[in-house]
Amino acid sequence: GALIGSRSYSSQIPSSSPLEPLDTYLRRHNGSSSPKSIETLLDKVGYKSVDSFVESVVPDGILSRRPLQISPENGLSESQLTSRLREIASENKLYRSFIGRGYYGTIVPPVIQRNILECPEWYTSYTPYQPEIAQGRLESLMNFQTLVADLTGMSVANASLLDEATAGAEAMAMGFHALRGKRKVYYVDENVHSQTISVLKTRAKTLGIEVVIGLPKDEAEFKSSFGTLIQYPGANGNIESPEYYQQLSDKVHGSGGVLAVATDLLALTVLKAPSSFGADIVFGNSQRFGVPFGYGGPHAAFFAVADSEKRKMPGRLIGRSKDRLGNPAFRLALQTREQHIRREKATSNICTAQALLANMAAMYAVYHGPEGLKNIANRVYSLTTYLASQIESSSSHSLVNNKWFDTLTVKLGGVTADEFLAKARSEYQINLFKVDDSSVSVALDETVTAKDVSDLVSLFTGSTVGLTTLSAADVQYTSVPEDLARTGKILQFAVFNTHHSETELLRYIHHLQSKDLSLANSMIPLGSCTMKLNATVQMAPVTWPEFGQIHPFAPIDQAKGYQTLVSELEADLADITGFDATSLQPNSGAQGEFAGLKVIRAYLDSIGQGHRDICIIPVSAHGTNPASAAMAGFKVVSVKCTNNGELDLVDLEAKAEKYKDKLAATMITYPSTYGVFEPGVKRAIEIVHSHGGQVYMDGANMNAQIGLTSPGEIGADVCHLNLHKTFCIPHGGGGPGVGPICVKSHLQPFLPSHDTVAVTSASSDGRAVDSVSAAPYGSASILPISWAYIKLMGASGLKKATELALLNANYMKARVGEHFPVAYTNAEGRCAHEFIVDLRGFKSTSGIEAIDVAKRLQDYGFHAPTMSWPVPNTLMIEPTESESIAELDRFCDALISIRKEIADIEEGRVPRENNVLKNAPHSQQDLLTSEWDRPYTREQAAYPLPYLREAKFWPSVTRLDDNYGDLNLFCSCDPVEAIE
Amino acid sequence: GALIGSRSYSSQIPSSSPLEPLDTYLRRHNGSSSPKSIETLLDKVGYKSVDSFVESVVPDGILSRRPLQISPENGLSESQLTSRLREIASENKLYRSFIGRGYYGTIVPPVIQRNILECPEWYTSYTPYQPEIAQGRLESLMNFQTLVADLTGMSVANASLLDEATAGAEAMAMGFHALRGKRKVYYVDENVHSQTISVLKTRAKTLGIEVVIGLPKDEAEFKSSFGTLIQYPGANGNIESPEYYQQLSDKVHGSGGVLAVATDLLALTVLKAPSSFGADIVFGNSQRFGVPFGYGGPHAAFFAVADSEKRKMPGRLIGRSKDRLGNPAFRLALQTREQHIRREKATSNICTAQALLANMAAMYAVYHGPEGLKNIANRVYSLTTYLASQIESSSSHSLVNNKWFDTLTVKLGGVTADEFLAKARSEYQINLFKVDDSSVSVALDETVTAKDVSDLVSLFTGSTVGLTTLSAADVQYTSVPEDLARTGKILQFAVFNTHHSETELLRYIHHLQSKDLSLANSMIPLGSCTMKLNATVQMAPVTWPEFGQIHPFAPIDQAKGYQTLVSELEADLADITGFDATSLQPNSGAQGEFAGLKVIRAYLDSIGQGHRDICIIPVSAHGTNPASAAMAGFKVVSVKCTNNGELDLVDLEAKAEKYKDKLAATMITYPSTYGVFEPGVKRAIEIVHSHGGQVYMDGANMNAQIGLTSPGEIGADVCHLNLHKTFCIPHGGGGPGVGPICVKSHLQPFLPSHDTVAVTSASSDGRAVDSVSAAPYGSASILPISWAYIKLMGASGLKKATELALLNANYMKARVGEHFPVAYTNAEGRCAHEFIVDLRGFKSTSGIEAIDVAKRLQDYGFHAPTMSWPVPNTLMIEPTESESIAELDRFCDALISIRKEIADIEEGRVPRENNVLKNAPHSQQDLLTSEWDRPYTREQAAYPLPYLREAKFWPSVTRLDDNYGDLNLFCSCDPVEAIE
Ligand SMILES: Cc1ncc(COP(=O)(O)O)c(C=O)c1O
Ligand SMILES: Cc1ncc(COP(=O)(O)O)c(C=O)c1O
Ligand SMILES: O=C([O-])O
Repeated sequence: GALIGSRSYSSQIPSSSPLEPLDTYLRRHNGSSSPKSIETLLDKVGYKSVDSFVESVVPDGILSRRPLQISPENGLSESQLTSRLREIASENKLYRSFIGRGYYGTIVPPVIQRNILECPEWYTSYTPYQPEIAQGRLESLMNFQTLVADLTGMSVANASLLDEATAGAEAMAMGFHALRGKRKVYYVDENVHSQTISVLKTRAKTLGIEVVIGLPKDEAEFKSSFGTLIQYPGANGNIESPEYYQQLSDKVHGSGGVLAVATDLLALTVLKAPSSFGADIVFGNSQRFGVPFGYGGPHAAFFAVADSEKRKMPGRLIGRSKDRLGNPAFRLALQTREQHIRREKATSNICTAQALLANMAAMYAVYHGPEGLKNIANRVYSLTTYLASQIESSSSHSLVNNKWFDTLTVKLGGVTADEFLAKARSEYQINLFKVDDSSVSVALDETVTAKDVSDLVSLFTGSTVGLTTLSAADVQYTSVPEDLARTGKILQFAVFNTHHSETELLRYIHHLQSKDLSLANSMIPLGSCTMKLNATVQMAPVTWPEFGQIHPFAPIDQAKGYQTLVSELEADLADITGFDATSLQPNSGAQGEFAGLKVIRAYLDSIGQGHRDICIIPVSAHGTNPASAAMAGFKVVSVKCTNNGELDLVDLEAKAEKYKDKLAATMITYPSTYGVFEPGVKRAIEIVHSHGGQVYMDGANMNAQIGLTSPGEIGADVCHLNLHKTFCIPHGGGGPGVGPICVKSHLQPFLPSHDTVAVTSASSDGRAVDSVSAAPYGSASILPISWAYIKLMGASGLKKATELALLNANYMKARVGEHFPVAYTNAEGRCAHEFIVDLRGFKSTSGIEAIDVAKRLQDYGFHAPTMSWPVPNTLMIEPTESESIAELDRFCDALISIRKEIADIEEGRVPRENNVLKNAPHSQQDLLTSEWDRPYTREQAAYPLPYLREAKFWPSVTRLDDNYGDLNLFCSCDPVEAIE
Repeated sequence: GALIGSRSYSSQIPSSSPLEPLDTYLRRHNGSSSPKSIETLLDKVGYKSVDSFVESVVPDGILSRRPLQISPENGLSESQLTSRLREIASENKLYRSFIGRGYYGTIVPPVIQRNILECPEWYTSYTPYQPEIAQGRLESLMNFQTLVADLTGMSVANASLLDEATAGAEAMAMGFHALRGKRKVYYVDENVHSQTISVLKTRAKTLGIEVVIGLPKDEAEFKSSFGTLIQYPGANGNIESPEYYQQLSDKVHGSGGVLAVATDLLALTVLKAPSSFGADIVFGNSQRFGVPFGYGGPHAAFFAVADSEKRKMPGRLIGRSKDRLGNPAFRLALQTREQHIRREKATSNICTAQALLANMAAMYAVYHGPEGLKNIANRVYSLTTYLASQIESSSSHSLVNNKWFDTLTVKLGGVTADEFLAKARSEYQINLFKVDDSSVSVALDETVTAKDVSDLVSLFTGSTVGLTTLSAADVQYTSVPEDLARTGKILQFAVFNTHHSETELLRYIHHLQSKDLSLANSMIPLGSCTMKLNATVQMAPVTWPEFGQIHPFAPIDQAKGYQTLVSELEADLADITGFDATSLQPNSGAQGEFAGLKVIRAYLDSIGQGHRDICIIPVSAHGTNPASAAMAGFKVVSVKCTNNGELDLVDLEAKAEKYKDKLAATMITYPSTYGVFEPGVKRAIEIVHSHGGQVYMDGANMNAQIGLTSPGEIGADVCHLNLHKTFCIPHGGGGPGVGPICVKSHLQPFLPSHDTVAVTSASSDGRAVDSVSAAPYGSASILPISWAYIKLMGASGLKKATELALLNANYMKARVGEHFPVAYTNAEGRCAHEFIVDLRGFKSTSGIEAIDVAKRLQDYGFHAPTMSWPVPNTLMIEPTESESIAELDRFCDALISIRKEIADIEEGRVPRENNVLKNAPHSQQDLLTSEWDRPYTREQAAYPLPYLREAKFWPSVTRLDDNYGDLNLFCSCDPVEAIE
């Protein structure tokens, strides 16, 4: 480092009292906090004060005068936060869980915990939209897909869904749409997890599907149904005979239906694959592959289908393609499901999924390998079998299921379930599952110890074996019965048979990680994604055992810490949004949309307006909006935008008028997806309200609002938040996320409930909608992150962050705007927290398109901004408050330098087809060749600006061949859908 | 990944009972564990069984038949280990510490904890001997040096020493040697930390120095002394006037002595620098810059001197030099202090230091910056001042010191110190320091809260302020008195004024890390260094608060967990070495040597053999051996080695005979530093014993012995172990380490004691030697790592690891030996756990030397083996048991490929001066140039083998110019360029 020349520092002591802590968070979170740097930013934008600047951005009448109530006002210090969180954590009690029901104890391999779950290089990366700088996690997700496909026996698996229950709903929807909605009945075996059934019902209702619990006796009855869902092994632990499954499958298929099977990956390492009896869709939860309970999530659900169905499968799919040099490379296939989602024609709204957890599960399988996994499964099976034999031979209880993998349902003799569970808790600190008043179930897992088995035997049989611990000689390994057993090898791929020592796995994880660009490298200015700091102090609690090791169905009095945290977070989010109540259940923004619309629908029903089914959505909306609306049973009517990107109020009023008897809702994003605070938003809301509609606000852009305005004050009725954007949950390379909804009081009674657990935010009067997620609080174990962020910032810090987010965006706009056209600003030329760089003009002057600039940015060490959304051939830049001026400048310098490279083409100095932009990005292999015949030098390709000589991030492959990739998946490409 | 072809897997269930856990550690630790891979290794080496192989390596008569007693025999599983360790941890009680005395509470910034202390890329790297692949940590250590030099006001600081007390001893030794040992008296102010005085005494004794506690009144008395040591601020908290220090300094200098000042970095941010009154040497503990108490360590001591002294300063020194391209680059300067240490002429034996902790401290300063640090200091000062005023005005106690920074010594009124301390503990859970029967001291630090201050006021004054917590208005910031205050700015370097947001710091840490090669990249086959797996499950407890947040002088009953852990580890290490007792106090191997020799000396004294002062050391010994011997007051006599690398028994016998009346000891490394189990070792030991000497065994190579033989069985009397080699403590980029000594029972009474804490292993009968480290258990907080390793492996696992370490080495030797001469094997052609590749022949055939091969290995993605030690122009390869066959092969392939590159030179196809070896390593910048006139291609330089196209690790600079660097020692950040 160099000496600071003339810059002078005040040597003044702080103005606060020394009793106040100094490890304050705001200055760590915000990229600029000194008065001097705020001044630099304001100068460039042309304002004298933050207040006058904010007034130029946020329209009069929108800007709030209401201070936030978040306390403490100035936030907790980092160590205060940690102390408080330790107190809360200690209110959770860690009993041993044998509850099962889709959630099982697992041993997280420490090397995976430390190097993925606790590693910012993994957790701060974005969805791999830019494959050249994401080959590491793409490879890992490909491992996940391979693992799932192999164990389920299916041809294709996706890269995760939100949870097992929503995966079930997706399976149902796939079946429904396969028959174009002509059949309405869906059969669901009663031996399916009840949380799955609950989510199916939520989803079914609005699609007009009739979920029938219990399979028909009569084969003919299947004819009315589009499909059937079973769980294998069943929720009660039972496994039917292969013949049973085959016959069922034949019946379903014979009547033209789709057979979906919910299953368990560990069981499948030793049991026959569902493909063996003809399953069409296979899904489940991969949690027990090394992802903690986390009080219900986040975990990666898996989803696999036959090859013929792969293009209809929901969720992200990683494909193998090749790069410009012909080298193999991975990419997100079928990207039309992503930001460019097919609006109301989409059959699923899934966007953010569970990439980080899928990667953990994949690495767990990589680490254990086929033999290791089978050993674990055989151990679980052997111990379950031993316990079963003890219960059968030495107790007055009887087994309900006579086959099993890991779960026994026990009909109790001479004792009620409540008494039995109470005894288990008080004498053994053990939780079991209450099936009914006289039955319980017990599920074993990888973590079970000899002491656990001894205690369970003792609990069920009354024998004193629990006083001493069983010794090795007492129990032998047994194999699953031959008729149920899988034959043939599993996971015969090199990656699952190589990295079995910790050294090897560490290197594999490190190697993948080193290919990927994350926030540890440079800013990721993705518009509408808010890639802000994910602070370590917020992340640390996620791996505390007190938050990780609780089963979601544990008795509530063991989860008091979670109750405290959830209540505080619900209240704070309600305050921030200007609403009255919050539900934390949805696992993503898109699920929040769906939940919010379900709530609106339930409300309309309750006031006798159930016939209203039109949802007005601006054309500029994110694709998930119309997709969610369709899923929630609404008909989507589009409303135009004006040339300057604002909602066309004239069109809106016309549509509202036209559909006034059927208008149910509108969905608005604010600031708009074009990055502007439209002054007309209040008028728009009035129009909808006055025509009988409810107003849904998409909170993806909440980072522009906090402390300055709020959906509630503007007049909306409900909104979702993306905690993985505004509230510091890291994006994890494509999830996890949390998409809570906040509502006005009239909607509060309808917030989602849960079938097994009484949820704090759900009313108990029967008006609550069914659940939208498998777990009562969705992805509970990452809620501490957002809770911590809010408590660290306090009311004043949150507002300062918003102001800086706006200021940073306008600073960049000012710099970039000197070289590129910037589309869509307000009357004063201001953007909100993001802005759109318009590249449409360059196609004709130079042949350059947005993708070329995006890829060239990689050569400068940056992740591209959001590309071609919401406007084709543009880049949408969102810096967030966490970036320093130095970093903003570095990015601006890169873009400006690219502008010069474009000028070189425009002015004929460089050919249109063979130039640094069209050939971008450049990998090492691309440049380190003896042959060189390009019209630019290797140095120009690799080091266009001096900072790159000190810190160069390399794309690990050259530009992906999208055509090749899509052609090898698609038979024909719909030109309407093809974006980019 | 690709399908595995014909490879077949057994589908058998495990042979153990399912009650046994499956998360066993051995298969994760050892790189090969399947019978098939062991067979592959044996095949290549030519043996049918591991036993017959081992018998060919370890001579008859050396091979032990004694099974280890470590329990459990087969080790704990990873989760069992963690449970057990949590139990142990919970025995430690976390009281609030205001003990001070060189150890202070600190807030470890979470971003530093996670991304350095918990990051394998940082903690598994080696000492930066290969600067081209270590620029990241070299830069960070340069930041540390700059920080220290700037705050102390001195010209040059080193890159850390082991602890404050040994730094004090080094300061004393520097002064002593400056006057060539002509003066013997060393004055030490009584206001120096007592643990420092204790270590000074240990060191002084054997050098013939007389440590006089208390400064002479009479100026003339200074004439007899070579130097004076004071503490600033004093141990009791007091600060004298600047005039006082100046006058003292004048007196010391006036009489030709050296003034050493022990100090505190935080205090120096606001107090005058010791340079202001002419200090010659300034040292202290940097712990409070973000490194936890850890029950005493590890922490980085700092050490700074005037420019004229820099070449005499002990410890590692990072210098700024340039690479082949003329680009600035960092390197370890003056490497003669390292492995090639100047044997008995060395004035210090320091080798492993505290790099990881120095990096943490440096990053802490980078994060806080000058203003942040001063704020912390002013806060501590203000609160201390407030507490002082309360004690003075409202209690019956009186202050002993009337000036202070953070520490007050209080003469108690009407209560004994013991009563007062008991009350503090029981009523407030607060620890203070007992000064004497009627005085205590209290030291404040960064972590102090309003509640803490309230409680302290309440404790000292009896007021009820503690019942409520003080509120901000009660206490104001005050500045240190003007006459004591520092003037002028601190830390005006760019690096300390840039990375103040968490995002910026994360990126800086990540950027540095990405330049460095660690075990997360590839094997680091450094002979004599044992770079094995540092497993996550072992590392995790290091950052548990129960181990981290205990002050080393906390009452022993609060540290019961540590007592348990220490006792078990002492016993296990004694079992492993075949000895009777263990001291865990030494902080490094070299300190272990010194401690062991001190013990021998004390023993000899005790049996009337105090005149014995000859230590026989083979010429092949590590430089620390003779250096330690000299430090311990022995005269070193060298003994030759035979041509095949063995100890020359004839020469040994002759020397023993010659010095039989004065022979005190011999130091032997076993297997020898040449990597061979010499059959003659027992005879050598007999010879020494029969001539009245004790036998010291250097345990650096213990990884070849565990479970197969032991120093005790062979006949040695004492050995040290490097827990940072054999016992899984990671090397941290150059420390921390632990160098315990194990001894036979006759030496046990002399194991080191501690002045403040009763150490478990120290006898209380007065025979124990004084302490060798500042803290009672040295680097206590990393002891859980080695404890965990031993418990995970169990007796059988430890033996299997040793066998595999030998087998891996012999496998590589077999492969490499087909292409290179391998020097020094036993009669059967076997090496031990390492072997020496002899490159001496290539100088004449091709001009190639060891350094060229070492640097070329970087192009292949590898860290070079130990270079030119113990034999010039050779490479010594130690694979350890943790490497897989695939990795061993990759390294062998690289070396064999390099052999072909040498052949190209030998056979004239390529010039002798301009070739891939002489130009190695190649950085990106070196290859990504348009100009290219070398006789090889860029691809040959970068991708000599195919695996490099998938995974290339790049040296960030080209070969360092060592001559330039040694001639031009720049040891701080560049002050020339102005920033921003
Ligand atoms: C405006 C908008 N709405 C909704 C979503 C969907 O959120 P999620 O990905 O969490 O499902 C996004 C995500 O990018 C968005 O930008
Ligand atoms: C043989 C031998 N002895 C002693 C030492 C010194 O150990 P330390 O670096 O821990 O002081 C080493 C270190 O490399 C060594 O190899
Ligand atoms: O990459 C694809 O296979 O689409």
